[in-house]
Amino acid sequence: MIKVIKIGGNVVDNPEKLSRFLSDFAALEGDKILVHGGGKIATAISKSLGIETQMIDGRRVTDAPTLQVVTMVYAGWINKSIVNRLQTLGCNALGLSGADGRLIVSQKRAASPVDYGFVGDPIPEKFGIRTAQTLIEGGFTLVVAPITASEAGDLLNTNADTVAQTIALGMSAIDEVELVYCFEKAGVLLDVNDETSVLPEITPAYFAELKAQGIVSEGMIPKLENAFKAIAGGVRSVVICNAEMLSQPGYGGTTLRNK
Amino acid sequence: MIKVIKIGGNVVDNPEKLSRFLSDFAALEGDKILVHGGGKIATAISKSLGIETQMIDGRRVTDAPTLQVVTMVYAGWINKSIVNRLQTLGCNALGLSGADGRLIVSQKRAASPVDYGFVGDPIPEKFGIRTAQTLIEGGFTLVVAPITASEAGDLLNTNADTVAQTIALGMSAIDEVELVYCFEKAGVLLDVNDETSVLPEITPAYFAELKAQGIVSEGMIPKLENAFKAIAGGVRSVVICNAEMLSQPGYGGTTLRNK
Repeated sequence: MIKVIKIGGNVVDNPEKLSRFLSDFAALEGDKILVHGGGKIATAISKSLGIETQMIDGRRVTDAPTLQVVTMVYAGWINKSIVNRLQTLGCNALGLSGADGRLIVSQKRAASPVDYGFVGDPIPEKFGIRTAQTLIEGGFTLVVAPITASEAGDLLNTNADTVAQTIALGMSAIDEVELVYCFEKAGVLLDVNDETSVLPEITPAYFAELKAQGIVSEGMIPKLENAFKAIAGGVRSVVICNAEMLSQPGYGGTTLRNK
Repeated sequence: MIKVIKIGGNVVDNPEKLSRFLSDFAALEGDKILVHGGGKIATAISKSLGIETQMIDGRRVTDAPTLQVVTMVYAGWINKSIVNRLQTLGCNALGLSGADGRLIVSQKRAASPVDYGFVGDPIPEKFGIRTAQTLIEGGFTLVVAPITASEAGDLLNTNADTVAQTIALGMSAIDEVELVYCFEKAGVLLDVNDETSVLPEITPAYFAELKAQGIVSEGMIPKLENAFKAIAGGVRSVVICNAEMLSQPGYGGTTLRNK
């Protein structure tokens, strides 16, 4: 069994939360892979460098200078800071981008109808399973930054949720995989205003029911649909939880299963 | 036999030189490790970010903001750009800092008499031989950025020449090692103004003679002394050459040997 755990910018941006999370992560038994998001440092550095952030329909455009900044920040500063911290916690961490050992090959997004620049969508069939397997069997805990590369040789800014899902799907060919998304809430809530109303488990049938009753929030629906796609693709379970709960059984979150 | 090849900032800063060098590097037969220096991008980015470069006796002080910049630039942008380029050339590159898999553990330099900040000197006995061996046997060509980490958990800015030497010495415990320093000149020159006057081979005895005759330039003496230390420590040979000559036999440079 291998755990693929994704943390977002909200954890990366908060030194105290990150430190606590990394202690809990280091203490987890068994094989594990950490995928980290970007955080606000990249935006702050872009601003200081005088790079204008272009947005189209609420989405950031990754032009060449922005690509340089996110590669520096995600694959450089954040990745190495996390690796270094895990090493001091006794976890044999090794940091990677998707370019390293061609772990994650992406397709540069088409320039029309909207040109988002150097942004890539992972190609699941091209997942670097040999790279992953060799490194895991070698005793390393992989720490993956959301920068990938196309076969043509472009580095590409990539959504960290998708990176985590691609790794989970890829690894499911050779192992049982638990995919864990850490986010701001404790899990999928029955009542969006009550953090204690976490639904411990959701099956596809129950999900359909929740949607029909309008219980799942708009923002949560695509997240859950993606999670069920991963399960349909071979991932054993997907957990949605709060990063602060990693030391708890079931991470105090919502587990999605195909039964 | 394994080659440990170091390129400096002069190659990293020049896209055309770098591209040519990487093609030649990718074409080299056998196991190889690339160590890259920093280049001027870090200085330019520091300046844009309004970070003042503090110098003491001609040496840069690595304060906390500067450490962040060099980690971003060296271990992020430069490292991933090189890895990605090598992958497109069919070379299975994997990028690392010294923190990854604890490849290179450093001692933070003492704060007195001069406090250079977050600067580290590698501890040869703590070289991550298992990490290196596992990755090389796994089929990866390592690309190493000159950022290392102390056991206490500080990321540290580190001289790339020293990183290359530490790797060469460490690897010599399990393999024959050729250490190659690429720099601006064709090699050690008999006449400093004549690029064709390369001395093809220097032994310790010949080096003593050259020094006595005042033939070796001031700047070259510590480089050669370090090289002979590496040889005394178990490295089979050290080559000093121009990065543009990597496809030539003996790299058209000067080979130092212990005989």
